[in-house]
Amino acid sequence: MRTLSSQELYAGRVLQLHEDRVEMPDGSTAERVVVDHPGAVVIVPLDGHGNVLLVRQPRYAADRKELLELPAGTREPNEEPKATARRELREETGFDTRDLIPLGGFYSAPGFLSEYLHLFAARDLFASKAEPDEDEFLSLQPTSLDNVPNLIRSGEIEDAKSIAGLLRVIFLEDLTD
Amino acid sequence: MRTLSSQELYAGRVLQLHEDRVEMPDGSTAERVVVDHPGAVVIVPLDGHGNVLLVRQPRYAADRKELLELPAGTREPNEEPKATARRELREETGFDTRDLIPLGGFYSAPGFLSEYLHLFAARDLFASKAEPDEDEFLSLQPTSLDNVPNLIRSGEIEDAKSIAGLLRVIFLEDLTD
Repeated sequence: MRTLSSQELYAGRVLQLHEDRVEMPDGSTAERVVVDHPGAVVIVPLDGHGNVLLVRQPRYAADRKELLELPAGTREPNEEPKATARRELREETGFDTRDLIPLGGFYSAPGFLSEYLHLFAARDLFASKAEPDEDEFLSLQPTSLDNVPNLIRSGEIEDAKSIAGLLRVIFLEDLTD
Repeated sequence: MRTLSSQELYAGRVLQLHEDRVEMPDGSTAERVVVDHPGAVVIVPLDGHGNVLLVRQPRYAADRKELLELPAGTREPNEEPKATARRELREETGFDTRDLIPLGGFYSAPGFLSEYLHLFAARDLFASKAEPDEDEFLSLQPTSLDNVPNLIRSGEIEDAKSIAGLLRVIFLEDLTD
């Protein structure tokens, strides 16, 4: 695919929106509206006692619901994903770590959104100081890993990055001793 | 959370963007930029012989990569999620079913995007006719369920809805006989 032209529709601090004319694989042309996002991280913090540290927070964009999620956050300009992960872990949970395990990542909504989430597991947690952004309303909820499948099936955990990150760590990795 | 005021930034056919002034749980006010999306469905089509039907397609918004994903698609206005699921399954894979199993769903990116994805498993598939949208370039890739964990770990499958949907069906449901 090749960009033939691009029209800016909105340029915000975090998100940009543009509509591009694109040459498709067969040589035809198509329009694509794209939301550009700087990328983010999502962390699976394991406390070594069979719990994962989740955060509960009100989500205005998600029908104003309070969701139970993995800690996550947006990359600052030029910030390495690992540095973002450690910063967001500290800010959102009050715990820090020197043991971040990179587990690849995934696109949030590849049909129209450029956001790529880097996934990390975090072990050997030690107490730091929670410093949520001033307009976040987070509460920490340590949750038994054994109970995560129930919380996913019941819809208590209902965002894609948390379900993907938790199930990956629980069923595909050997980290949750 | 309560909306105090809302300013439209962009209104497209599928996406709308607005910036809202919001009263937060503690009475303070905050700004929220929201991408509104009509919602979508994602389907885990099981062929009864140990395979899941995935689709490979070029994704302009996702670094122009070709991704291997579960079939999925956006709801038409007033379309029931189950009807969307059957339509998208037909359009993207060429298979139809009368056995769609609802498995709840999840938000794609609840920090700023309203999109909610309804998840379905599909069984008892029968041949129909693939009718991809004219600007989609899909190819069907039946994939052994046994190989899905490897494809996730290696990053071959790297979008949140596909990882969440596949791991949920493989590890939390009893459907893959």
